[in-house]
Amino acid sequence: MAESTFEQILSTAFDYKTEKYVIVKKHKVGVLYRVIQLCIIGYLIGWVFVINKGYQATEDSIQSSVITKVKGVVLINSSDTGVSLWGPEDYVIPPNGDANFFITTNVTQIPNQTLGICAESDRIPDGRCSDHDDCPRGESVRAGHGIKTGQCLNKDRNGTCEIHGWCPGEESQKSHVLGKVENFTIFIKNFIRFPRFSFSKSNIPETQDRSYLQKCNYDESVHPYCPIFRLGDIINKTGHRFQDMAQAGAAIGILINWNCNLDIDSSQCHPKYSFIRLDVNTTVNSITTFNFRYARYYKNATGHDYRTLFKVYGIRFNVMVHGKAGKFSIINTIVNIGSGLALLGAGSFLCNMLLLYYMRNRDEDRNKMYDSIKAGSSRNDTSTRDKAQEEESREQQQLTSLKLQADFSKDAEASA
Amino acid sequence: MAESTFEQILSTAFDYKTEKYVIVKKHKVGVLYRVIQLCIIGYLIGWVFVINKGYQATEDSIQSSVITKVKGVVLINSSDTGVSLWGPEDYVIPPNGDANFFITTNVTQIPNQTLGICAESDRIPDGRCSDHDDCPRGESVRAGHGIKTGQCLNKDRNGTCEIHGWCPGEESQKSHVLGKVENFTIFIKNFIRFPRFSFSKSNIPETQDRSYLQKCNYDESVHPYCPIFRLGDIINKTGHRFQDMAQAGAAIGILINWNCNLDIDSSQCHPKYSFIRLDVNTTVNSITTFNFRYARYYKNATGHDYRTLFKVYGIRFNVMVHGKAGKFSIINTIVNIGSGLALLGAGSFLCNMLLLYYMRNRDEDRNKMYDSIKAGSSRNDTSTRDKAQEEESREQQQLTSLKLQADFSKDAEASA
Amino acid sequence: MAESTFEQILSTAFDYKTEKYVIVKKHKVGVLYRVIQLCIIGYLIGWVFVINKGYQATEDSIQSSVITKVKGVVLINSSDTGVSLWGPEDYVIPPNGDANFFITTNVTQIPNQTLGICAESDRIPDGRCSDHDDCPRGESVRAGHGIKTGQCLNKDRNGTCEIHGWCPGEESQKSHVLGKVENFTIFIKNFIRFPRFSFSKSNIPETQDRSYLQKCNYDESVHPYCPIFRLGDIINKTGHRFQDMAQAGAAIGILINWNCNLDIDSSQCHPKYSFIRLDVNTTVNSITTFNFRYARYYKNATGHDYRTLFKVYGIRFNVMVHGKAGKFSIINTIVNIGSGLALLGAGSFLCNMLLLYYMRNRDEDRNKMYDSIKAGSSRNDTSTRDKAQEEESREQQQLTSLKLQADFSKDAEASA
Repeated sequence: MAESTFEQILSTAFDYKTEKYVIVKKHKVGVLYRVIQLCIIGYLIGWVFVINKGYQATEDSIQSSVITKVKGVVLINSSDTGVSLWGPEDYVIPPNGDANFFITTNVTQIPNQTLGICAESDRIPDGRCSDHDDCPRGESVRAGHGIKTGQCLNKDRNGTCEIHGWCPGEESQKSHVLGKVENFTIFIKNFIRFPRFSFSKSNIPETQDRSYLQKCNYDESVHPYCPIFRLGDIINKTGHRFQDMAQAGAAIGILINWNCNLDIDSSQCHPKYSFIRLDVNTTVNSITTFNFRYARYYKNATGHDYRTLFKVYGIRFNVMVHGKAGKFSIINTIVNIGSGLALLGAGSFLCNMLLLYYMRNRDEDRNKMYDSIKAGSSRNDTSTRDKAQEEESREQQQLTSLKLQADFSKDAEASA
Repeated sequence: MAESTFEQILSTAFDYKTEKYVIVKKHKVGVLYRVIQLCIIGYLIGWVFVINKGYQATEDSIQSSVITKVKGVVLINSSDTGVSLWGPEDYVIPPNGDANFFITTNVTQIPNQTLGICAESDRIPDGRCSDHDDCPRGESVRAGHGIKTGQCLNKDRNGTCEIHGWCPGEESQKSHVLGKVENFTIFIKNFIRFPRFSFSKSNIPETQDRSYLQKCNYDESVHPYCPIFRLGDIINKTGHRFQDMAQAGAAIGILINWNCNLDIDSSQCHPKYSFIRLDVNTTVNSITTFNFRYARYYKNATGHDYRTLFKVYGIRFNVMVHGKAGKFSIINTIVNIGSGLALLGAGSFLCNMLLLYYMRNRDEDRNKMYDSIKAGSSRNDTSTRDKAQEEESREQQQLTSLKLQADFSKDAEASA
Repeated sequence: MAESTFEQILSTAFDYKTEKYVIVKKHKVGVLYRVIQLCIIGYLIGWVFVINKGYQATEDSIQSSVITKVKGVVLINSSDTGVSLWGPEDYVIPPNGDANFFITTNVTQIPNQTLGICAESDRIPDGRCSDHDDCPRGESVRAGHGIKTGQCLNKDRNGTCEIHGWCPGEESQKSHVLGKVENFTIFIKNFIRFPRFSFSKSNIPETQDRSYLQKCNYDESVHPYCPIFRLGDIINKTGHRFQDMAQAGAAIGILINWNCNLDIDSSQCHPKYSFIRLDVNTTVNSITTFNFRYARYYKNATGHDYRTLFKVYGIRFNVMVHGKAGKFSIINTIVNIGSGLALLGAGSFLCNMLLLYYMRNRDEDRNKMYDSIKAGSSRNDTSTRDKAQEEESREQQQLTSLKLQADFSKDAEASA
């Protein structure tokens, strides 16, 4: 070691230093070690590689565009509001083919409302009164429909405040369920893109039969890739009944899941549709009613506003697109193997600790597993052993030292 | 090794091979090593397990549905446009209870617009002119409201192009702030689902008191789980004042954060609300004004169109739902422990390098830490040591070789 | 080992135990090992630290708010519907400055529709008939516009069912492409926030020149940070032509990507714009047409409804904001270094396996790499070696045993 020339450095640079091992013939530990090894290898192969495809680079951030189109018409023949025909331009809100859209299932029309004076609905707590003082003038009714005029109408029994608002109020009309909505069809166009792999696909099957899309209806078993869905089917797949939803409204999620393995042919990458009800009813019934109001405004000959107010209950659909694409990547493969091996190392580390600290006659094992290097040089090193060698002959003494010289091969050279 | 029978293979299969250790009695390294170990263990326990709950499988992809409902009415009494009452169907845009909605706070109505000829607003740079040539016929005004007719009106001082568009223009009217908007209430229904654990919950407290939701108002301290928010409160929580926003508009984010530990009772999984202003004003004031226009169209008796244009400023609300659910998972636990142990291994690896390359008298240590295996067989092995043993007696020579036989136990059998 | 007093424990607590190494002078393995080490170090430095900035804590969940504003007007002069001027309030759907908006490029107006009886369009398969029985009374036309009355009109050649619906039907009118749409400008305000670092920014350049935003147009090279985009430019950047889209409609994604390194000045954190066509046409042409219908309702003097139906084709824009922010974090740095070292450990582990199981004369190497500990004490240990030493002289026998005593230094003390 005294003369460390360049050649030496170079040569030693390519020496391979590995641990010196001790074979412990204790099957308790051995078996434990093998079990741990098996677990880790199983985890590595089974979980990391087979299940999680650890050899692939994956892309989660999917670029997606959803265009929806609802078809179907329904006729309402009401005694009070007369005949009216509802088409997609009316019952789909907003009508612009968005991924989130609302389909009206239950409507109350209040035609010919004008600004004026009338009684607040007695369903609104803040609208009830028993005296004029309960209706301070100019104050708006909390969660109500107008501004209090200061009068309490019909105050002797369940009176309500008089309000300045759009009259007549909603009570004047009854609601109509659009019965045929079940038969409406929803055409969902979904275009996806995995930027990392610049891979694009749409959910529209590449069929030659051009009329296929005019005939087919999605059916998990028969037409799993037909992008046209019957509204009633969707609701049934969520495990609910249309009748329950039509009255009070609901929110339904249409999940499109793309799980593409780009190592195989892209034509194998198909969307998977699933349907869930999003507004699970956890509490009192009234909670999950989903309704809102909108109005159509008109002007009469004298230029005064009047309007038709629509209070609609319905089903809101959210089309949610998720996706994952995987493609072989050497880096991911190496990294996963590497970390797997690191785990194996950790396994043996674990066994060592068990062996050293928890097994019987551990002192002895430890001794066999450890050599000692004192802060000083190998001088003290040998002296530690004198105890063991007092009764030995001078010759043996010498032999031993020889042995030591030989035992620590390079050391021997040095001490020569 | 000659006869390697099945029994041998089996027996050795369960031998445990561990590293042979060297104890280095150098406290510098020892302390360093312990410190590193402590850090790693601290990191593993404190960071991975306690803080990041490494023993849990977590689910980030939350399925969420948001339904909003705004309540409140406001009366505008304008000298020019007369009395008008604004309800949710008017000031909430779109009115369909979406998670992203706009509430009008400041409106300019331009009633009775008809298609015709009038002057472009002088606020629009491209509309200004000093000569007819500045208004090429048929060209539209950039960022303007009509098509140039070729005339430059009132060109002597700050003239503007004559346009073919909806007249009269916006200048003819002044805006009205809807003062009472502060008192509007926003009812937010949020239904979430963690598909991985098929766990569903809503933000509506499961109370027996059915009238609770009609009375309560969200308040961090008093009613932290009341899903009804006063608009003024929301704005205050963002650290801004309603007056500042009402005039020019703003964008506010309502964050709902679900952090659910499913190892404990699900009733402990509550939403956390926070409110931020999204359109922080980083530059000149005019930037953050948020307004848009929409129109209501009418037909007069002769079937000609006329319209009322609304230019509205307001506050846009985005309800954003984030969430994380965790549940105990044996796999995650093992993996995290394993990688922690792997780190421990790395720790000792680090110390070795320090020991070998940076400590004093490292040659000597190295020698004690290394045995040597030459490319050839143990024959060359011994020969390397001859250097050290030239002056030794033939007997010692032989003894040494014996030692070698014994030293490498199995090897001895082979060379026998 | 017998008397293990507190001092001993304390002292040994700070002993550093490291593996005893074997130097294998086999350059095959050595070189392999070095190569593996280099790969791992290269991976660690190059991939983990330089490319993936492993020393930073990163934040992916960006809070973003997008406000869009489209400017431009276009005049339609149609023989049948007369002159009409389209402004943003008309052709932008919805008009409320959302991140997802639709711009009309091709419109068909059907004015003065009233509820009545007319023929279904012959383009609708379910509307065709050759006999009255093909049109069961009261049944709605699938994907059609009304309710069948039971009559089959003009049944001799390509007849269609008579329907009760809004008449006249769409065929009565022809469509008009809004030619000038190319010149419309889209002003995109994007405000982002990285909650973890509470860092906010907007995409509006902080310029002193207040008129900059009135003049500039986005241009990758000249004005890369101007937030105003010419519609025609956007389409060109997607690699398509406006003419192709205007007729049938399309969906375009405007991607805003924020990649902020918060270790350097935040003014260096800029948005990057890119534009893609989302509805790549993978199949028959008809697929990617994107149109929908909406109606404006009027009441005549007698209070009967009539409407103007608009069938619009157009381009839908989705502004998608992604972002990543990174900031130095000591924890991430340590963890990444640690796992890197763990990988190094794994590397040597790999080499061992190669060395032990795949190299020539592996028995021999193995022997040098292993000591043996039997289930019993070192007594059996020696006995195992007797096999190898039967023919040896008693003296050698004794010497060997001496060697053993010395070989396992501490062990010698114990057996003393």
